[in-house]
Amino acid sequence: MTRDASGSPTVVALSGGIGGAKLALGLHRVIDAGALGVVANVGDDFLHLGLSICPDIDTLLYTLAGLADPVRGWGRRDETWRFMDALATLGGPAWFQLGDADLALHVERTRRMARGESLSSITAVFCERLGVATALWPASDDVVRTRVRTSAGWMSFQEYFVAQRCEPVVEALDYQGCEAARPCAHVLEALRNPALRAVIIAPSNPLLSIEPMLAMPTFRDALRLCHAPVIAVSPIIGGVAVKGPTAKMLQELGQPIDGLEAARRYADVIDGYVLDQRDAHLAPASPVGVQVVATNILMTNLESKVRLARECLAFADTLAASMGARTSGS
Amino acid sequence: MTRDASGSPTVVALSGGIGGAKLALGLHRVIDAGALGVVANVGDDFLHLGLSICPDIDTLLYTLAGLADPVRGWGRRDETWRFMDALATLGGPAWFQLGDADLALHVERTRRMARGESLSSITAVFCERLGVATALWPASDDVVRTRVRTSAGWMSFQEYFVAQRCEPVVEALDYQGCEAARPCAHVLEALRNPALRAVIIAPSNPLLSIEPMLAMPTFRDALRLCHAPVIAVSPIIGGVAVKGPTAKMLQELGQPIDGLEAARRYADVIDGYVLDQRDAHLAPASPVGVQVVATNILMTNLESKVRLARECLAFADTLAASMGARTSGS
Repeated sequence: MTRDASGSPTVVALSGGIGGAKLALGLHRVIDAGALGVVANVGDDFLHLGLSICPDIDTLLYTLAGLADPVRGWGRRDETWRFMDALATLGGPAWFQLGDADLALHVERTRRMARGESLSSITAVFCERLGVATALWPASDDVVRTRVRTSAGWMSFQEYFVAQRCEPVVEALDYQGCEAARPCAHVLEALRNPALRAVIIAPSNPLLSIEPMLAMPTFRDALRLCHAPVIAVSPIIGGVAVKGPTAKMLQELGQPIDGLEAARRYADVIDGYVLDQRDAHLAPASPVGVQVVATNILMTNLESKVRLARECLAFADTLAASMGARTSGS
Repeated sequence: MTRDASGSPTVVALSGGIGGAKLALGLHRVIDAGALGVVANVGDDFLHLGLSICPDIDTLLYTLAGLADPVRGWGRRDETWRFMDALATLGGPAWFQLGDADLALHVERTRRMARGESLSSITAVFCERLGVATALWPASDDVVRTRVRTSAGWMSFQEYFVAQRCEPVVEALDYQGCEAARPCAHVLEALRNPALRAVIIAPSNPLLSIEPMLAMPTFRDALRLCHAPVIAVSPIIGGVAVKGPTAKMLQELGQPIDGLEAARRYADVIDGYVLDQRDAHLAPASPVGVQVVATNILMTNLESKVRLARECLAFADTLAASMGARTSGS
């Protein structure tokens, strides 16, 4: 579990915001400093008030730094809202909440981006300044934007998610820019690292958090070619999404909502799948070539995050042993 | 003292930040709502952290809205600094202090400017939102920037003023863009208004606050041609600047520092000049064509601001009467 000699992390996690950040925090706690790299979805990123806002990077950053608000799930703990109050008084757009301290992240990121710095290098600076030893990488330094087609027409993800509160019926999703976007170089390097131990896809919303990454052809190929085991944790327990609009969106798109849905969606890139013990009966129906384990995947406190992280790593190690046996046997 | 039938203010004040805002507040208190227009210097405006910051407009806005911090003289009262603390933690530039609530003004202004709105129309919206009936106009919607040549080379005004604390020796000043800049249309309209009663140049720093306006040829011409009396209040009392670097800068530029200095600098545009009673002995040396009165011009509280405002208006009315007599007699 120590940092690889090359300096590249040996465990890579793919994550969206709140749900994924729980497992990312568990992994962060059980893996040595520098040995974990977390890849953050950038499909939700947007420009608001002239500021570059990266909701998933920010949630992961605050979570790993111990600054996250434990109740809201986003933003910083002990936040104040003087800026928002003054903005509303001035008649500015107040539909997206930005706390006073949180604002510094967006302003400083925007300032650095205007100077030509990449999102990944800026994120690295922020990790260092906030004392986060885990590497946090945007899925891409290029622009990939999730757009939602609803009964009310195409809209940006934030328009759908925050302003419209996920109320319009979803008809289609589009990850604008995904074909041309290059994955972050650090991610590709980590996935090629001979010392790579495991890739873990966190229980984030497949449609909104993971597939904007997999929609980049180079990203998906790198996962397919990765020699280490790739495993995913189900975002659905007992036919219900643990958090957020996953189930509603899958249903509106005519997709099944069950504990194996993510396994089917990621079948070409994963070797293993972790579903909840309540869904253990589904295991026999898992896609060909995907090993399944069932455990309690509901993360309600730090202890359960750490336990699930350990179980994911143990599962990956088991898979690696059998993959190695398979390889030597072939 | 009522609002002119045309809707245009009948008293116009030219002002920089802190010092000028004191007299602007006095005038605001003694003139009917809508009858006062304050022209704010824009030479200090700058882009910082990607935000359009207009220090003099903001000081005037907060002063007239009753939101100004009474101790610091700039920014908002009861301000908090969570944004600055977080920015410093992230390693961002922390040399220019931006309070949490104050920040909303810069962010919202920047957002509106990016949409193509003019600085004057944005300022009008802010006045309305903050309940300020006095018209507040930027001297120009175009870019005029004060630059300072010092022993350390040319620098922006804010670099000189805030970052370097006015320490370098000033060798020259430049108001970049002043030749091509057009004064704000509302200002020109007000100066042409047949019902105009008086123009009052506040006791602001001539070099930094008033001359960036007068350096616009159309602005200076409009003041020269103005039919109403134009008066100025001295920013210097007993050879000392009331506030800020006026005296230091004048000295370094080889200019006299006395109660008549502003009268000499503005001689071609003013009809009257108000100096402090301690400088009354200088009156006989005033420029040809400039009437002088001496009074207590030190504004230490609201009462003295109101008193000086009343005295300025009375002086202007006296001048108007004699100008009228002169005109009818010619």
